[in-house]
Amino acid sequence: MQKRMAAEFLGTFWLTFGGCGAAVLAAAFPALGIGFTGVALAFGLTVLTMAYAVGPISGAHFNPAVTVGLWAGGRVPSAFIVPYVISQVAGAIVAAGVLYLIATGKPGFEMAGFASNGYGPLSPGQYSLTAALTIEVVATFFFLVIIMGATAPGAPGGFAPIAIGLALTLIHLISIPVTNTSVNPARSTGPAIFAGGAYLGQLWLFWLAPLIGALVGGVIARALGDAPSSADKPHIAAAEAGD
Amino acid sequence: MQKRMAAEFLGTFWLTFGGCGAAVLAAAFPALGIGFTGVALAFGLTVLTMAYAVGPISGAHFNPAVTVGLWAGGRVPSAFIVPYVISQVAGAIVAAGVLYLIATGKPGFEMAGFASNGYGPLSPGQYSLTAALTIEVVATFFFLVIIMGATAPGAPGGFAPIAIGLALTLIHLISIPVTNTSVNPARSTGPAIFAGGAYLGQLWLFWLAPLIGALVGGVIARALGDAPSSADKPHIAAAEAGD
Amino acid sequence: MQKRMAAEFLGTFWLTFGGCGAAVLAAAFPALGIGFTGVALAFGLTVLTMAYAVGPISGAHFNPAVTVGLWAGGRVPSAFIVPYVISQVAGAIVAAGVLYLIATGKPGFEMAGFASNGYGPLSPGQYSLTAALTIEVVATFFFLVIIMGATAPGAPGGFAPIAIGLALTLIHLISIPVTNTSVNPARSTGPAIFAGGAYLGQLWLFWLAPLIGALVGGVIARALGDAPSSADKPHIAAAEAGD
Amino acid sequence: MQKRMAAEFLGTFWLTFGGCGAAVLAAAFPALGIGFTGVALAFGLTVLTMAYAVGPISGAHFNPAVTVGLWAGGRVPSAFIVPYVISQVAGAIVAAGVLYLIATGKPGFEMAGFASNGYGPLSPGQYSLTAALTIEVVATFFFLVIIMGATAPGAPGGFAPIAIGLALTLIHLISIPVTNTSVNPARSTGPAIFAGGAYLGQLWLFWLAPLIGALVGGVIARALGDAPSSADKPHIAAAEAGD
Repeated sequence: MQKRMAAEFLGTFWLTFGGCGAAVLAAAFPALGIGFTGVALAFGLTVLTMAYAVGPISGAHFNPAVTVGLWAGGRVPSAFIVPYVISQVAGAIVAAGVLYLIATGKPGFEMAGFASNGYGPLSPGQYSLTAALTIEVVATFFFLVIIMGATAPGAPGGFAPIAIGLALTLIHLISIPVTNTSVNPARSTGPAIFAGGAYLGQLWLFWLAPLIGALVGGVIARALGDAPSSADKPHIAAAEAGD
Repeated sequence: MQKRMAAEFLGTFWLTFGGCGAAVLAAAFPALGIGFTGVALAFGLTVLTMAYAVGPISGAHFNPAVTVGLWAGGRVPSAFIVPYVISQVAGAIVAAGVLYLIATGKPGFEMAGFASNGYGPLSPGQYSLTAALTIEVVATFFFLVIIMGATAPGAPGGFAPIAIGLALTLIHLISIPVTNTSVNPARSTGPAIFAGGAYLGQLWLFWLAPLIGALVGGVIARALGDAPSSADKPHIAAAEAGD
Repeated sequence: MQKRMAAEFLGTFWLTFGGCGAAVLAAAFPALGIGFTGVALAFGLTVLTMAYAVGPISGAHFNPAVTVGLWAGGRVPSAFIVPYVISQVAGAIVAAGVLYLIATGKPGFEMAGFASNGYGPLSPGQYSLTAALTIEVVATFFFLVIIMGATAPGAPGGFAPIAIGLALTLIHLISIPVTNTSVNPARSTGPAIFAGGAYLGQLWLFWLAPLIGALVGGVIARALGDAPSSADKPHIAAAEAGD
Repeated sequence: MQKRMAAEFLGTFWLTFGGCGAAVLAAAFPALGIGFTGVALAFGLTVLTMAYAVGPISGAHFNPAVTVGLWAGGRVPSAFIVPYVISQVAGAIVAAGVLYLIATGKPGFEMAGFASNGYGPLSPGQYSLTAALTIEVVATFFFLVIIMGATAPGAPGGFAPIAIGLALTLIHLISIPVTNTSVNPARSTGPAIFAGGAYLGQLWLFWLAPLIGALVGGVIARALGDAPSSADKPHIAAAEAGD
């Protein structure tokens, strides 16, 4: 379990440092900044890259909602939940600290939200609590459906990190304007500790909504995946199998 | 068939929610918005991700034109068409509804086209009906050629979702300015119901053109693929095979 | 050979229609346009997608320089060159015609270069003939080195379309400002016929430079690849093999 | 060793020419420029493409820090270090020279930093020496963790170039504003020789920081990877293995 915890710590550090780092350091750089598209790519690539690096060690969750959702889907034993979540939150907090050290090395740096998540006045587009809750639940639900499906026994080997990493990119392309995109309570906790104040006060939503979405996603994906399906050439399988 | 229908519902929900959501919520965000490039990526990644997730269950069509084109190409039995298309259209309509709930959570939200497709005055670049019809037929034709080829028996296993998802990204990179890009009658139907009025009046084109392109594409790709070809290293095969 | 020619026709149509289409229709769209990054992605994805679709049929060259370079590298028999190049150029010209039909469906459309290649006053950044010649030779040289390597017997199966398609994206990210990026005489010929005048007068460079780069690339890559190397885990192989 | 050196020369030429070329020629092109996102893509794709092309020949390091880090991780014999590093630095310098030839073919070209790395007044965002040192060490550390993991015996075959190339893209998305992103002493040396003056004076940091990060990364990744782990379906493995 020690190596699993080290892998989850490193992976969640990289997710938070890379994704929030791209947002804080590079998104709004004058004229050449990477914008929301670049931030979406960065978040997704943190997961894609570290899933290839440490996937065989810990399963590459890097996200308390993923750990809980996979437990609901029958893929992870309950004994994993606490040590995984502790490692993930620790990784995210340390990452936010290192990012703070770097970001403040710029003359005239202003903190603002430090890539924290938020709703209402703290949402990038001032979206309401209802909108924020809805999009976080829906996005995390699909994130789990994709993770469960891409790592199912019938899935083609080796492609899961691509599917899962790019799913996170896609989720950011949709939802940064609404909540700055969480779907990951650990990633939300790290920067909120540094942004403090109102951001900490909204942190509950970015634990609650992803966990709800992930639980439902894990259960539904498990039910959906129970059908026997051995083929990896889906369209042909469809034509031959009938049913 | 129930699990197939559930998979097609979820996949088309995700395609419509993710692609149109990126367009409505994030494309034109001030200074940091994702633009057409981000929307194109989002549409493609919805298919890439859900094809890995539920491909082995339903074949991952998420699009009435794809179902009909694959039927024309001999890959899908005719009994699949009606239940698949119903699930797809239902998924797209529900997705547009959830997106509406989120989008209206922004103070001062304005509906505009709600990511609907259109030609003439409703085309992003005011392109004519002829231009719209041509590009939708051509794009859906190639979409089917790519789907048929990437899922053919001789194709390398596991790569089809990458080829097909990124084909949809490519199609959007070309054609958003002309029609806002359909190539998918279900995706067109969802937002048009909410945008209403003139958009509903143009919906016929985004059923007709993709279906024509898909039918021709399925037939041509089937004829093209009849040649025996077992190699997966194309250039070497070319050098060795002669003919 | 008929199916090979059909595949090369379709693939080069898609490359020219998709890449030049993205440039003409979407690159400079007000506020939301895809810019050079989107055009670079589009060109690369045309090759990635059609290589998965028809790679097993024709080898997926879609480019006279690639056909000639692979011949120089010993991968393609000389009897293939003429029918392949004819199919490629025909596909590119027809594609430019269909694109012209669509593009002129926009009120107030202005032709400009119609995504043609050029140097000096016709270069996007007014780069000199020497700069244009140099970058086209260097880029096509590396394009062939990548194609030869990614389709070599020791290469991992199924990944070649990703490596080759994204190589074309990369080449565009570097060189659009200099020549609007050719590395493909067929792609250069299609739009130049419609742009006419000065663009036709510069077309010779976009046959000459890519062919030189491809010939040298094919020969060098062949020499480089002659070493016995069976492993597909490069770093481990390096540690074990010594030499 | 001659073919290994040729492969490392070509690969590092492509990395420097492609990445710095995208930065110098295309990043700031008026209205349509590729920005930091395009430059980040370009750097990553140089590695992705050449790793597929020459990975089986040399291991595709293209970077002195990678060679040293893999040696620290027990993957590369010490006798490789000197010839590899010489080939890499030579490739980068020649690449910068060819890029200089092309870039100066534009009327009114201004040298500026020529894509060199820097801190303080030479940092794109004027970040301090401490910030520069920190981000280069952290980024190179994770680069090595990803390279070691993605090429480990338990990793799925063929995906390493995707993981490693996109890791470099991700690193650029985060850190271009801080140091213009090195993590590669050879890539730093090439342009600095042409930019001269103050840039040469700061070059030491872009040898020191990447080498420190790589050494620590190689050692840690080796320790982490010592656990037995044979599965390539990480989440399932997690559920079954217990521990």
